[in-house]
Amino acid sequence: LKIFSLNSNEELARDIATAVGTKLGKCSVTSFSDGEIQINIEESIRGCDVFVVQSTSTPVNENLMELLIMVDALKRASAKTINIVMPYYGYARQDRKARAREPITAKLIANLLETAGATRVITLDLHAPQIQGFFDILIDHLRGVPIIAEYFIKKNFNPDEIVIVSPDHGGVTRTRKLAERLKAPIAIIDKRRPKPNVAEIMNIVGSVEGRTAILIDDIIDTAGTITLAANALIENGAKDVYASCTHPVLSGPAMERINNSPIKELVVTNSIALSEEKKGGKIVQLSVANLLAEAI
Amino acid sequence: LKIFSLNSNEELARDIATAVGTKLGKCSVTSFSDGEIQINIEESIRGCDVFVVQSTSTPVNENLMELLIMVDALKRASAKTINIVMPYYGYARQDRKARAREPITAKLIANLLETAGATRVITLDLHAPQIQGFFDILIDHLRGVPIIAEYFIKKNFNPDEIVIVSPDHGGVTRTRKLAERLKAPIAIIDKRRPKPNVAEIMNIVGSVEGRTAILIDDIIDTAGTITLAANALIENGAKDVYASCTHPVLSGPAMERINNSPIKELVVTNSIALSEEKKGGKIVQLSVANLLAEAI
Ligand SMILES: Nc1ncnc2c1ncn2[C@@H]1O[C@H](COP(=O)(O)O)[C@@H](O)[C@H]1O
Ligand SMILES: Nc1ncnc2c1ncn2[C@@H]1O[C@H](COP(=O)(O)O)[C@@H](O)[C@H]1O
Repeated sequence: LKIFSLNSNEELARDIATAVGTKLGKCSVTSFSDGEIQINIEESIRGCDVFVVQSTSTPVNENLMELLIMVDALKRASAKTINIVMPYYGYARQDRKARAREPITAKLIANLLETAGATRVITLDLHAPQIQGFFDILIDHLRGVPIIAEYFIKKNFNPDEIVIVSPDHGGVTRTRKLAERLKAPIAIIDKRRPKPNVAEIMNIVGSVEGRTAILIDDIIDTAGTITLAANALIENGAKDVYASCTHPVLSGPAMERINNSPIKELVVTNSIALSEEKKGGKIVQLSVANLLAEAI
Repeated sequence: LKIFSLNSNEELARDIATAVGTKLGKCSVTSFSDGEIQINIEESIRGCDVFVVQSTSTPVNENLMELLIMVDALKRASAKTINIVMPYYGYARQDRKARAREPITAKLIANLLETAGATRVITLDLHAPQIQGFFDILIDHLRGVPIIAEYFIKKNFNPDEIVIVSPDHGGVTRTRKLAERLKAPIAIIDKRRPKPNVAEIMNIVGSVEGRTAILIDDIIDTAGTITLAANALIENGAKDVYASCTHPVLSGPAMERINNSPIKELVVTNSIALSEEKKGGKIVQLSVANLLAEAI
């Protein structure tokens, strides 16, 4: 068994290796002067079960190409199995034709990974669980809710004083799972646009008055949805608002929106590495290293 | 027949469409806030022969992913055939295992294009012509030498006063083709390192004394080889030095090296679009639009 890290998530890869009781394999992943990726695997992997840790987070196209080229190199170096540990699956939101003539990039990525030579994928909280069916190779789909639940359980909230909130209809299953673990009720934010070109109205289904609200989502990207939800919760009488998600994409205006929002803490995992400017402040980052190590 | 341009080479794509007697198809190729590529094809292509113009030049990984996602979208929109016009084939220099455990990225790219759904590839001066054999789909391999020859023929050099020079052993075939068209003799630069850690010596096989030398290569990347060759030619008595190549990668120190070299003109094609800072000066850019249009 050999574990290699590419460039998206080296710290997590090291923690996974430690949890498994080994060290990271030696390889160099750099760029030529023109930006082409150059990979050298610096130890024999012939006949080994090889695990490659890489999230296809920003810069998504670079990270994906690193991964595909690494898988090609491993295959040609006679690895026995090539297992991709991809805590964050980029392009997962392009998982269907919402309009005519759109690509289904999440499926394309699955095909590219198989073509390169991957034999198994281990991933976490896919934006749509149906993406599992895009693969003909083995896929393990892990869940981040238990890790997030564990964090909030330690806060010893009184279950009668909290409510777990889904920022939209799509996330109700995930919200229920967190609520079960915290023995708390749920609420759902019901965004409606009364007429075209009129601002959305945020109705809240369920009672939040006087309670500490815990928002949960899978991805927080530009943080528009989550910060509007937080405002709506406060306007509806919530005492405090916490927010949580598995994948902190946090692009564009996200940090500014979160800092200016009533969100008290944003609890995320390290499926995506955070840059130094994003660390600290309101953000609490939980590790998925043990969870992933158990699946190896 | 429909021709679409992606982001690497829009001007060339427009010229190809004009040469074919049509206009570029409508599509938008942009990025989401997190850097994921978003493609919308804005006209029906059902049952059409579609041509997509894209070089996988810098930024190579972005340009390649744009292309793969576009091909996926075209396939799902029921294109009859999907023809890739790729004037510059990125990663072509990673075409073999030079060392143990290296990838063969040029082959990986071929497999990825086929997996996405391409049915034919039209390309120009592959770094190694063997890359044609990496494809199981149709591949057309065009040559830039006639276009470069035409430019130098117009200069009306006396054939007895010029010499066509290959900067290394690998490029002799190309050099001979240019020399035949210009009815000129050839010379070859023979780089040798007498001992490890001793500077290379540039021997010149053939006579250059008193002649105008025309260097030709397929790719000029950091311009190290070509500018050293130019110096060696002047030291060996060449009167003037011109340099030419099909693919002006021109990364890192390339422009500075060329500007500080004895090279009088650098003649290239538009297989790779040049940024504004690179245009003009010593660089002359010839169009491959008609050549590509004829292959369509
Ligand atoms: N990287 C991205 N950033 C923002 N929106 C995206 C991204 N990828 C896909 N989408 C859009 O998000 C929607 C899918 O999200 P959802 O409805 O939550 O499944 C689709 O309309 C996509 O066009
Ligand atoms: N993008 C690149 N930039 C510079 N060198 C490269 C690049 N891709 C591959 N190479 C190296 O170039 C050599 C192949 O060039 P050649 O010997 O001219 O076929 C190999 O040793 C590669 O490691």
